[in-house]
Amino acid sequence: MAQLLPSALLEAIEELGRLPGVGARTAERYAYFLLRAQPTTTEKLAATLRKLHSGVKQCPVTFALIDSDQTVSPLYDDPSRDKTIIAVVEEPLDIVALERTGNFNGTYHVLGGAISPIDGVGPEQLHIPELVKRIEDDQVKELIIATNASVEGESTALFLQRHIQERGITVTMSRLARGIPVGVDLEYADQITLSHALEGRRLL
Amino acid sequence: MAQLLPSALLEAIEELGRLPGVGARTAERYAYFLLRAQPTTTEKLAATLRKLHSGVKQCPVTFALIDSDQTVSPLYDDPSRDKTIIAVVEEPLDIVALERTGNFNGTYHVLGGAISPIDGVGPEQLHIPELVKRIEDDQVKELIIATNASVEGESTALFLQRHIQERGITVTMSRLARGIPVGVDLEYADQITLSHALEGRRLL
Repeated sequence: MAQLLPSALLEAIEELGRLPGVGARTAERYAYFLLRAQPTTTEKLAATLRKLHSGVKQCPVTFALIDSDQTVSPLYDDPSRDKTIIAVVEEPLDIVALERTGNFNGTYHVLGGAISPIDGVGPEQLHIPELVKRIEDDQVKELIIATNASVEGESTALFLQRHIQERGITVTMSRLARGIPVGVDLEYADQITLSHALEGRRLL
Repeated sequence: MAQLLPSALLEAIEELGRLPGVGARTAERYAYFLLRAQPTTTEKLAATLRKLHSGVKQCPVTFALIDSDQTVSPLYDDPSRDKTIIAVVEEPLDIVALERTGNFNGTYHVLGGAISPIDGVGPEQLHIPELVKRIEDDQVKELIIATNASVEGESTALFLQRHIQERGITVTMSRLARGIPVGVDLEYADQITLSHALEGRRLL
């Protein structure tokens, strides 16, 4: 079959098709939309994507995503927030979901994933040593283990609980309440459900 | 609420959210995926988007999308294709859908939309005069009006039929068969349904 579309459009379709959950038809739709949009719209999208990697880095303490010119996460730096309470999450976007509840005034720690033997992710790839260090440095009183309500999230929570108990560290540990529908990623939970889950957290 | 995500990430989320059907959560997911992907992946996407507008233009005869260094659509230029049969479509991507059937050896004419009073699109905004000129220049014998099976597509087909009859132009006109499920855009129809629709086209 001869080439039916211009090369530039085909390339855009191919690259947009790499986005998660985007099939060939959706990629075509996106590319055609961008082609019909004002050149400035497409140019602006391209420009933001170009500086995405250089503009973002990890907070060296909490592993949240921060501006590349910041030294530490503003949520950690904020003196009004309680550094002795840490919500431990899998991914940086989980922080956004929890902050949207407006119901948490502690700080965060991003593990950088969850234990998943199938995906080859073991506890050694997660930011657990840095969490243990923070518990000591900031005299942390409570850990809210806010991993996803998935098999991997549960395994990670269990591992973390044992790991900290084995080290004889005295810290209150809790899990988010079972208000979160099982199988739903934290990032997609609605604000009210998440708010209930924060309030109803169970002691471990 | 303080800024929870780095500016560069927020900007990428905002720009990705302009894509059709993409809400805030999906835009977050796309942006985070691109942030975690290799910088070359994101850079390549940005590069293809940057040259999207400059690399694509409209064929001056058929109004299909072509490479900016081509003079005319390769499907029109191809001597093995029958210039006396024209399939009239609303949008350039409809050509891709029809070509996938492998069941059509004529040429195409892109109207550039459909008549839609609500969206302020009247017949004068469509490439109808150019179609009339082609019918004369290429001694066209048959017009297959392959507009979408929507209210707008049907109105456009009816308008086109009357417009050509009023001009006393002798050309056989047909519509794609009613095999296409009503309400589905041509671009999303499956190949077999489209193939049946081509074969069973009705004389007007």
